[in-house]
Amino acid sequence: MLARVFERARADVERGIGDDAAVLTAPGTGKLVWTIDEQVEGVHFRRGWLEGTDIGWRSMMAAASDLAAMGAEPWCALAALVLPADVDDAALEAIAGGQRDAAAAIGAAVVGGNLSRGPALSIATTFLGRCERAVERGGARPGDGLWAAGAIGLAAAGLGALERGIAGDPRVAEAVEAWRRPKALVVEGRAMGPVAHAAIDVSDGLARDVGHVAEASGVAVVLDEEALRADLALCRAAEAIDASPVELALHGGEDYALVVASAVAIPGFRRVGDVRPGSGVHLRDATGEHPIAAAGFDHFAR
Amino acid sequence: MLARVFERARADVERGIGDDAAVLTAPGTGKLVWTIDEQVEGVHFRRGWLEGTDIGWRSMMAAASDLAAMGAEPWCALAALVLPADVDDAALEAIAGGQRDAAAAIGAAVVGGNLSRGPALSIATTFLGRCERAVERGGARPGDGLWAAGAIGLAAAGLGALERGIAGDPRVAEAVEAWRRPKALVVEGRAMGPVAHAAIDVSDGLARDVGHVAEASGVAVVLDEEALRADLALCRAAEAIDASPVELALHGGEDYALVVASAVAIPGFRRVGDVRPGSGVHLRDATGEHPIAAAGFDHFAR
Repeated sequence: MLARVFERARADVERGIGDDAAVLTAPGTGKLVWTIDEQVEGVHFRRGWLEGTDIGWRSMMAAASDLAAMGAEPWCALAALVLPADVDDAALEAIAGGQRDAAAAIGAAVVGGNLSRGPALSIATTFLGRCERAVERGGARPGDGLWAAGAIGLAAAGLGALERGIAGDPRVAEAVEAWRRPKALVVEGRAMGPVAHAAIDVSDGLARDVGHVAEASGVAVVLDEEALRADLALCRAAEAIDASPVELALHGGEDYALVVASAVAIPGFRRVGDVRPGSGVHLRDATGEHPIAAAGFDHFAR
Repeated sequence: MLARVFERARADVERGIGDDAAVLTAPGTGKLVWTIDEQVEGVHFRRGWLEGTDIGWRSMMAAASDLAAMGAEPWCALAALVLPADVDDAALEAIAGGQRDAAAAIGAAVVGGNLSRGPALSIATTFLGRCERAVERGGARPGDGLWAAGAIGLAAAGLGALERGIAGDPRVAEAVEAWRRPKALVVEGRAMGPVAHAAIDVSDGLARDVGHVAEASGVAVVLDEEALRADLALCRAAEAIDASPVELALHGGEDYALVVASAVAIPGFRRVGDVRPGSGVHLRDATGEHPIAAAGFDHFAR
């Protein structure tokens, strides 16, 4: 079954599907960066809101985003799928097609996996990447700028539109697409890798995620409200779902944008704030700076 | 949460829990062997039959067994857990404790993971191993002996005893323990690695698993019935659950024994059959040789 769904695809993959495990040529130097992520039906997605190809695509990109956030190049992925009885072969092919397409879109390959039966559809994706230097969360320094690549809050606006049943509203089209077909920012991750002091991907909301950087680095992070509302697509979608664009950016999830602390500008990144001595996350608006709670989008807390 | 549950534990693990991904020093030479396995409540186990520590232990050993079957040394693992609302912190700690203990028992470490909510408890485990030479399924040659390490059928007898509610019968004690606390045969895997022509672990029943070897190698495999019933613990447990020991060995699952094709004897392995020209799986008893169906224990077919 798996051999039909996935295929061996790279020269450094000696053995892919069809044996007990995948066999890879060990990289001679550098770092291996390795993550696992899981998307669970009813928690991370509803089948009514996504085609099978989208479900596969999102699961792969969510895992790859962790590699992008460390400045790594995605290499190979394995996926473990739990399939309820109503997922037939055609539905499985669609999911696997989305996984393959997503992996290919970022220069990686799915080299193996595991299928189980179970009560709810879930996809656990493990991704191996390679880099010379891994960018962690804990290296931000006072004086650094805070830089972002990718939309922030837009996916949450898209999810909001789906929840409200207004996904057909043209004002939310880009937002719904951002939620359905996120893209791991691998090129941007490779660009920031050599220079960034710290990095994270925005999966749980900007406030929460930069809060992790602030805590791990022992610094304060100041976000510019103006920079957060500078996204026209976000503002239009926020209006359609009657939400605040800044709230969506601060507390929405699943954008897979990258946010990095760096002393220098990085191609593809825009400045969204500063790193200061102190602690916590703060929002700077016309009236001054205000500490904000690092609450965010936490599937686990639901 | 994860940082409390798992801990960084090895010198070649530069960054474990608490960042976007784990960071490992790339091995300079050799092969990386990489697998993912998933255990799902109601499919692979019932919580009433296992302590939390057993659930964690089994999930880790099932994944590690794939590495043993390729002759690899387990290195590091990541786990993605889906937790229903009734799994509290203490229950999670117990599961994670079982995972840690199992990893430590085979010289490996859990270096990261992911937690999600969901309707049924599941554990996806991905394991990275290293070796100089990976033993695949497709290399068995006519004239090879078929050699086994570890009990075959015993875990299925234990599962049968649990299903029948007779786990307290002293005749099944060893069998129930085999099902509850399987051990990946890493030492045996390392021993066979340099000499075996083909190898597999017995997770879905001997007939089905050696059927994979026969098919991938383009050979016939002949199993000796006498060798399959030579396990006293298996015979006692089979009697208690009113089953045939040979049927349990051929079609039971989750033993995580190793079966290899080799032209030479291997320390720790006993001979259980032969490799011949031809195809399929055959059973040799006092009356001659009989082809047997490669049916077995397939969670996916349930």
